[in-house]
Amino acid sequence: MTMFMDVHTGMKGITTEQLAAAHKADLAVEADEGVHFQRAWADPESGTVYCLSEGPSADAVQRVHARAGHPADEIHPVPVMVS
Amino acid sequence: MTMFMDVHTGMKGITTEQLAAAHKADLAVEADEGVHFQRAWADPESGTVYCLSEGPSADAVQRVHARAGHPADEIHPVPVMVS
Repeated sequence: MTMFMDVHTGMKGITTEQLAAAHKADLAVEADEGVHFQRAWADPESGTVYCLSEGPSADAVQRVHARAGHPADEIHPVPVMVS
Repeated sequence: MTMFMDVHTGMKGITTEQLAAAHKADLAVEADEGVHFQRAWADPESGTVYCLSEGPSADAVQRVHARAGHPADEIHPVPVMVS
């Protein structure tokens, strides 16, 4: 399993409720792909959303996001991390 | 205090050791700016690094990164989040 950071643009004005609903939609379908979305952060001013997930491939991450109705603009594997 | 996600590009080939050293350099100077860098993730293939921090302003976050020798290419306030 690999960690992924994906990026969505064009989400200007996104609210906490909308981000939570989008995250819930991901959680509802992610198991089929062996993906787990852990956290998400949004900048409502620029309309940028970052999602952190763990999964078998970027394609699997994208399939979850696509099925949930919000395909990502970029998906980066991030195997290197500090916390 | 606000959460920020900043993005660095051009870091192709970055290793866990290099990311940890960069993070440590941030931690060493962040207190002066009231900033705390929490986590960082890197995609060595595309050379993209994402850093999650908490601080008073994007300028303060950038001053820490600049003093540590690695100014960010983008800094986004991310007041909206799910975890």
